[in-house]
Order: sequence, then C-alpha cells, then structure tokens
Amino acid sequence: MPFTVSSIDDSLVAALQHKIDRKTKPLGALGLLEKLALQVGRIQKTLSPELGEAQMLVFAADHGAAKAGVSPFPQDVTWQMVENYLAGGAAINVFARQNKIRLHVIDAGVAHDFGERDTLINAKISPTGTRNYLDEPAMSAAERDAALQKGREIAHRVADSGARVFAFGEMGIGNTAAAALITSQLTGTPLIDCIGRGAGLDDRGLEHKRALLQRAATRAALPADAAALDVLAEFGGFEIAMIAGAMIGAAQRGGLLLIDGFIVTAALLVAERIAPAVRDYCVFCHHSAEPGARAQLKALAAEPLIDLGLRLGEGTGAALAWPLVQSAAAFLNEMASFESAGISEKEARG
Amino acid sequence: MPFTVSSIDDSLVAALQHKIDRKTKPLGALGLLEKLALQVGRIQKTLSPELGEAQMLVFAADHGAAKAGVSPFPQDVTWQMVENYLAGGAAINVFARQNKIRLHVIDAGVAHDFGERDTLINAKISPTGTRNYLDEPAMSAAERDAALQKGREIAHRVADSGARVFAFGEMGIGNTAAAALITSQLTGTPLIDCIGRGAGLDDRGLEHKRALLQRAATRAALPADAAALDVLAEFGGFEIAMIAGAMIGAAQRGGLLLIDGFIVTAALLVAERIAPAVRDYCVFCHHSAEPGARAQLKALAAEPLIDLGLRLGEGTGAALAWPLVQSAAAFLNEMASFESAGISEKEARG
Repeated sequence: MPFTVSSIDDSLVAALQHKIDRKTKPLGALGLLEKLALQVGRIQKTLSPELGEAQMLVFAADHGAAKAGVSPFPQDVTWQMVENYLAGGAAINVFARQNKIRLHVIDAGVAHDFGERDTLINAKISPTGTRNYLDEPAMSAAERDAALQKGREIAHRVADSGARVFAFGEMGIGNTAAAALITSQLTGTPLIDCIGRGAGLDDRGLEHKRALLQRAATRAALPADAAALDVLAEFGGFEIAMIAGAMIGAAQRGGLLLIDGFIVTAALLVAERIAPAVRDYCVFCHHSAEPGARAQLKALAAEPLIDLGLRLGEGTGAALAWPLVQSAAAFLNEMASFESAGISEKEARG
Repeated sequence: MPFTVSSIDDSLVAALQHKIDRKTKPLGALGLLEKLALQVGRIQKTLSPELGEAQMLVFAADHGAAKAGVSPFPQDVTWQMVENYLAGGAAINVFARQNKIRLHVIDAGVAHDFGERDTLINAKISPTGTRNYLDEPAMSAAERDAALQKGREIAHRVADSGARVFAFGEMGIGNTAAAALITSQLTGTPLIDCIGRGAGLDDRGLEHKRALLQRAATRAALPADAAALDVLAEFGGFEIAMIAGAMIGAAQRGGLLLIDGFIVTAALLVAERIAPAVRDYCVFCHHSAEPGARAQLKALAAEPLIDLGLRLGEGTGAALAWPLVQSAAAFLNEMASFESAGISEKEARG
C-alpha cells in the first residue's frame, strides 16, 4: 500500500535502556534527551544511531481564503518569502546555515510563476493555489491525492540520497487558518479554541478571522467523524497536504521526523489518521504560541523539546531544536559508562 | 573596586529594537530569541554582535557534609568525575565537543591529589574540601575571599584570550544541598521547598536530607537579612564561591554569562548580592528539575531558554542551550529586512 507505515521495532528497547542507564550520570538525569535517544535507537534499530545531515523540506502554497482577510499580510507575501528563501535571507535560511541543515524549497501551489529555478522544486498542484473554502472545498479529491503523492515522492527522493532526518517547514499566507480548521475537526476541539493571531492579527482582525472560519466550518458541515482526507480537501492547503504525504514517505524509509509548529503539526494530524504509525517517527520540536497547538499536542500525546514563544513557522522551531536532537544521539554514542570510567555507583543507603 | 560590575548600556536599545523589527518576520515572531538578541547587542554595544567560541568553566570541589548522607553517591565520585572530564567521557565533554565549546576544568577544592595535570587548573582552596556545615561554617572568611578572588582571576584570564561568552558548570557530591541552603536563605523561601532529590535520592534519602539541612540551618542560625558573603561561608562550597567570583569577573569584562541549573544559579544569587548588575549579563539556559529552581528563577525574574527535565549539572544545560544563543545573534546579523528583500508589509486592515 502506498501510504502505510510500519510501527517501530521494540526488540532493542531493553538493550538501549541499559546502555542509557550505564552512562556516567544519575539515572534519568538527561530527562527528555534520554527518551529521544531511545526513540532514535529504535527507529534505526541500533545501539549506535547515526543521524547525518538533517534535511529541511519547506513547502509553500497559496490559500484562496487569504484574500478574505484571514491574515494581516497580503497574499503576495507567500511568493515574496519564497524568493527570500531562495536568496538566503529568511530566518529558516539563517538557522539552517548555522545548524548545518540542508534546505529544500518546494512550490506546492504558490499563485506566482517563478520560472525555471535551480534551487526551487516545482511541485505545483495548481498555478493559483487552493480555492476559497468559504465558498467551496479548497481542493478536489484528485488535487489532494496528487499533493499527497508528490510529497511522498519528494521524501523518497531525499531518502535515496542517504538522508535519515527530515524536518518540515511551510509558508503560505493564511495557513494558520487552514490549520485551525483541520485541528478543530480532527481533534474535536471547539473551533474558537484553535484560532489564534497567526502572523499578528490585532483584536479586530482576530474577531474577523473567527467569524470567517466559523462560516467555513458551517459551509463544509463535516460530520464529527469525517475522514481526514475529506477534511484536508475541504480546507487545504496544498503545502499541508504535501507535508502530510512527505511525512508518510519519510517514515516509510525509517527517517526521524522533526515536527515544527502549528501548521506542520496540523499536517501530522492528517498523516497520522492515514498511517497511525507515523507518530512513532516524530520528534516534537517546538510548542507553538498558537492556541490550537495545545489541542494538537494533547491529541498526539506530544511533549515538545523547546518553547521559545516562536510564532513564525518556516520550520524554524525544528531547525532550532535540531542540535538538541543531535545531543541525544551524541550522549548515547560517546559518553563513558560507569565501568569504562571507573566511577563508584550510588550507595544502597540512597 | 575588585567586585563591582557596571550596568549594561541602554543607548542602543531603540536602534537594536528597530533592526529586530525590520527583519522579514511578523513583529515579535522570534519570541525569546528577540529579547536575547537585544540583550547581546546591549552588552557588546553594537548592532552586529559577535559571540565567538563559548568557554565552559567547570568548577569542582568537595563538601564536608557529603559524608553525612546528603547525596546517594559516595564523595569519591567528585574526583572520579573530574577524571572523567579530563578523559573526555562525561556528558559535558560530549555536548561541549558537539557544540564547539571550549572546556576548562578547575579544581576549586576536591579532596583528592590529582598531581600535575596539563588540562586541570589547580585552584584548590583546601586539599580536603569544605568543612561539615552540620558542625561549623563550611569555610572561613579568608577561604571564601580567596575562592571569590581566584574565580574572578580565572575569568579575567579567559577574557584576556579574547573570550566573550562564559558558561559555568560544577561538580561536587552534595552540592545540591549547599545550593538549597543558600537558595532558601537568599530568597526567603522555606527550606523544605528548596530541597530536592539531587542526583537521585529515594523517599527515605530525601527525608534524611531534609532533616540534615534543617539541622544545618538551625546551627547556622542566620538572620533573615544575613549578608550573602556570610551565607556563602556558612554553607559552601568552594566551587560555588569560585563560580560567583568568576561570574563577576566575566561581567566586568563585558562577557555574556550562560547560567546553567540549580547550583550555578545558587552561585549567581550570591554574585548578584555582591554586584547586582551581574544579572544584566546573564542568559538563563535551563529550568532545573530541582524544586528550589523555581524560587531562584523568581528571585532573579528569569525565564530559561529550555526545560528538558535535566538534573545533571556539569554545565550541561548551558552547553545544550548555546546553539539557541548563537541563533539569536545569527538572526540579528544575517536575516534580510523587509526593505532589502522587497517584501510587502502587514496591511492596515490587520
């Protein structure tokens, strides 16, 4: 099946835990990094995991609803920011360079003609972005399936180059709105609790966004148990669909998935409904400041590594957390054990 | 005056904030990293700060009270862990190598003769560590002053080599106990709320530690407004005193100070009473799992960058957070502005 994912192996759990526990530190003293080391070892089926260079896949697309005012920024900012990525000037470029992450920029459906560009992957599903979900479904079933398929293919191609770590980022004016609609529907959380200020709405803008999204939900009139694929087609966007496909593709190849903030996690909610085991491969990197992030993380039983109050997207939360993920593998591979270092153990009187 | 520190400059605040706000991102979207960029620019008095290589100073010493059972580990583990640092096998070695931090190991008073060692800085205040604070003050006024002075000298020497970022770590069996006594006294928090499991006490061990520390506090019988210098002499240890001196020395040279967990923050409570402006130079790296950390951070109005549930010390929290600090300087120096990237601004309708 093209979109199935296998659960991660548990045969090494005891051996990995033993290796972690014999390191020269009090039991459990490395906190979340210990859980992460265990997960990485399980995914790679080894006591000595190698992460290599992380690959950041940034998917961009436009949203038909953007022109209705769900974002304070004009829709043109989507393609302008893609140009910024190609020129190396955005936050994600800076953090990727700093932390030695390879950046791939993918046009999943930006309403702009970039022409032929060496450094931009053209995977456009539509030259105009999604349709306006206030009036009709954002995409057709065929478009949705094409986006999922394309995302999976892109992840497989990156995996073919030897990559073992996949981070996901996004750009799309209006995409916190789509993510809010998806999150509400797939987690059963009231819509109002999933809607935030996105790129910086003021109080009036936030009221307007709430009213619009309530209209969209009413129009779509999905049942509470609607299939994730239907939810995705109703609200979009193409970048969210392609990320969901890429997550499944990366997990199929045994990759470690670095999950960024609110929009990427909305894509994961979709991916996880299609292939539940994809969750096993995920590291939650950043606790987004968007209010809907809480519902997402609860639904996924996730505990992110950092919470810096970021609300930027682009994959920046994942890029910033990447050194911590490397630290988890490094301590497992490089720290001495009590035996090798000749260190006395905790006394029974403890 | 040997232990005075100047407040950081505020003449560049507006220019730094303007530079941050013109970056290609929504206003404030980089959260804590924006505050950090502002702080680093103010400390270095420039719009384009350069951090260079971080220096990790790990101070080790023994505590007379350790033998009374305030830790589940035998006192010998202090010198054994110092040997582990010198051999490169401890967690701090791994994270320092990974994140390109230069490690300096300082013997502030370990009860062990290491002989002549190229890679160990011998700054021993006493060959046997501090005295047992259950019976008498941990150190004399002369020993305390020597430790503070030595710490300051070491920081100045490291600054002379061109260093601009100073991280602090520690090793000393029993030093969460000393840190708890200092924290309780200097923040006015009930002792019981400052005492935790340290390196891994079980329930019985925790009860024992509580009883012992209550005895120590009763013996010392310090007034609520006791001077920080008196508190330090009562409870020790030499590594805590030397860290406090080194913090002041590093701040005197305009360094950025990376503050690790519970024990290092106890040293900062002392340093900040001696020279209040030292606080301006501090980045709080990790929220320690020790219960007393809450009182410390509240007293210092501090918001740490990460919270990974670490309870290891050694400076590991600071070493892990260092890439995030670098990210703050990197975005300030390298990100494009709206003007330079030709990106449309937020619309008035927002």
